[in-house]
Amino acid sequence: MRRIEVNGRTYRLPEHPCVVVCVDGCEPDYIAQAVAGGHMPWMKRVLAEGTEVIADCVMPSFTNPNNLSIVTGATPAVHGICGNYLYDTDSGVEVMMNDPKWLRAPTLLAALADAGCKVAVVTAKDKLRKLLGHQLRGICFSAEKADQATLEEHGIDAVLQLVGLPVPSVYSAELSEFVFAAGVKLMQRRRPDIMYLSTTDYVQHKHAPGTTRANSFCGMMDRYLGELEHLGCAIALTADHGMSSKTRLDASPNVIYLQDVLDGWLGAAGARVILPITDPYVVHHGALGSYATVYLPADIDAEALAARIAALRGIETVLTRAAAASRFELPADRIGDLVVVSSRSVVLGGAAARHDLSGLDAPLRSHGGLAEQAVPLVMNRRIENLDPNRRWRNFDAFDWVLNHAR
Amino acid sequence: MRRIEVNGRTYRLPEHPCVVVCVDGCEPDYIAQAVAGGHMPWMKRVLAEGTEVIADCVMPSFTNPNNLSIVTGATPAVHGICGNYLYDTDSGVEVMMNDPKWLRAPTLLAALADAGCKVAVVTAKDKLRKLLGHQLRGICFSAEKADQATLEEHGIDAVLQLVGLPVPSVYSAELSEFVFAAGVKLMQRRRPDIMYLSTTDYVQHKHAPGTTRANSFCGMMDRYLGELEHLGCAIALTADHGMSSKTRLDASPNVIYLQDVLDGWLGAAGARVILPITDPYVVHHGALGSYATVYLPADIDAEALAARIAALRGIETVLTRAAAASRFELPADRIGDLVVVSSRSVVLGGAAARHDLSGLDAPLRSHGGLAEQAVPLVMNRRIENLDPNRRWRNFDAFDWVLNHAR
Repeated sequence: MRRIEVNGRTYRLPEHPCVVVCVDGCEPDYIAQAVAGGHMPWMKRVLAEGTEVIADCVMPSFTNPNNLSIVTGATPAVHGICGNYLYDTDSGVEVMMNDPKWLRAPTLLAALADAGCKVAVVTAKDKLRKLLGHQLRGICFSAEKADQATLEEHGIDAVLQLVGLPVPSVYSAELSEFVFAAGVKLMQRRRPDIMYLSTTDYVQHKHAPGTTRANSFCGMMDRYLGELEHLGCAIALTADHGMSSKTRLDASPNVIYLQDVLDGWLGAAGARVILPITDPYVVHHGALGSYATVYLPADIDAEALAARIAALRGIETVLTRAAAASRFELPADRIGDLVVVSSRSVVLGGAAARHDLSGLDAPLRSHGGLAEQAVPLVMNRRIENLDPNRRWRNFDAFDWVLNHAR
Repeated sequence: MRRIEVNGRTYRLPEHPCVVVCVDGCEPDYIAQAVAGGHMPWMKRVLAEGTEVIADCVMPSFTNPNNLSIVTGATPAVHGICGNYLYDTDSGVEVMMNDPKWLRAPTLLAALADAGCKVAVVTAKDKLRKLLGHQLRGICFSAEKADQATLEEHGIDAVLQLVGLPVPSVYSAELSEFVFAAGVKLMQRRRPDIMYLSTTDYVQHKHAPGTTRANSFCGMMDRYLGELEHLGCAIALTADHGMSSKTRLDASPNVIYLQDVLDGWLGAAGARVILPITDPYVVHHGALGSYATVYLPADIDAEALAARIAALRGIETVLTRAAAASRFELPADRIGDLVVVSSRSVVLGGAAARHDLSGLDAPLRSHGGLAEQAVPLVMNRRIENLDPNRRWRNFDAFDWVLNHAR
């Protein structure tokens, strides 16, 4: 039995195809309601015969930190990706963190490929592709830019011919369906040893668990997962984060515009609020999540300010840099002086004037906070004597599928 | 301007009809989703033109403690009702707490009646009627037993004739509709100065916010509330508690059977777990809520046991008697040695063998914990300069409607 060690954990090399699926924004109740409604017959059987827990994702409960945790088997303190946006104090500018130069740890995907495994990665949005595919010798492409995949850069071309579907809109359920459809075709034609599939939460940002559209999405997943199992795959399914309703009683977004609050207290430009949910695709959430970081001038007492912010209604917790790095397993040099988490139904904004909410055509649903930390972790193989009281993490998915699937 | 003082708070006597509505299990998102879907046009206008906050209910987030807090304007530490069930350590038996002998404070309803106001109270279930109507000279009856109302005991008879509806099933949306229909007829025919309407959470235990049945229920409420406003009423609407999904991934109830856990640790009958949600109507929740109290033999170290319980996955907090009485404003002599609160998607059971879950025909939704503490507090009158950062409580409803409605 060959083994590799990556980021301090040991993994067996796969003897049969292993698939890890990260369902973006899969609040556990999506699965429960879809199973109860009869929309996920495959999942219902897997929950009864396989292995399932509610796991914790990493904070902030955003897409990039969690996808990177899953593929490194490690926390953001190790891999360095703690959001989509970072304030570079040296240059004084805000920068996107989706360049691999920010990645501080090797991915398990690259390590498995280096050890001789055939690896395939399909993501919904292209923003994740470069991080997931860093130093990966194998297939790695996004549904969003599936038509632009080349052998040289993505390890595959003619993806649309392979999948038999057009390039979907980046704001659609079809973007995620393309990921699953591609996964099944890849497994049929190329039979990778390791496959990682990562969807987008377009549906979850708009539709609550148990609704027709959510159940339909779950049913779609269920059919593809059944096909993958039929092809002999061990499958571990998890999520990058959950999803909660974030509205006021009148269904408008329930926002604390933290930059405006701090400007009122400290004067304009006294503090800089960074919203690490921000990315080029903000139409469906308006860059509003339940997590923010704050950079302060040297003369501001961070602890006192933390206490003052924490006293606002709708704030769940405020931590100074060191406390946040410790409790949330974050890289201390990339999180600012304060980390602010809002409560379940509340999101944090920057300055009100800088948020474009015109694209919100449904009551806001979002994530980023502790209320969205619970995620499913399910495998279609049984682990005997699983410790139900252990704090399982979504980034245990590869451990499950490589070390415990029989 | 005449005033009365009740439980340390001062209230003006009403000059126009004032109505307080307690919507059982009204998680704020029920209103948001119904407003967004166009099912509550009256509420939409009130939210824009009146006053609205998200308030906190009292712990435990159950029906009786909160209804009594609303009608006394006080916490359970003052009024004494901290659940439906109590373990009477003197007699060694578990007793229902719905007899007025357990009530330690006068209600505002009785005090207003004594001050000369015409008071009317309509509850959905009869279990609350005796507590709400304690020493009340006025009208007080339940929809459940509307046909049995007598002038002598309930201050009114011939209720079915008045309302024009049959007695509804105790497990139905119609039980709550009867409350509203009766309220409108009473306001038309008797014009009480003060009216308190309290519904049942049958719909909320089965249907999530935004679903067809939930929206339909909200639409029904909205029409009756509009009629009451048309009759000149100042209306404050709040809830006794919220409501959360409480299931595992397979949609079965996500239960920690605490009595079984403690029996395993301490031996059978070492500890006694009390579930204060228990009442004669448990079909729709199986007596499963997110709050339990534990009575311990004298030789057990309560603090050590609290820490051990708190370490279980799915437990949010465990407090010893004194800490719980302080933090949750509870009567220390009625809450046992430990108070246990489970997390948002988890409920607490006693011994598994003693729960009959055969009546659960939908994925469990329940309450009792901190996750269900957020409730709407809405009034169809504007309060100028409301402090949005104050921790408003559902038991501020009478203060709003009597002291701040113009």
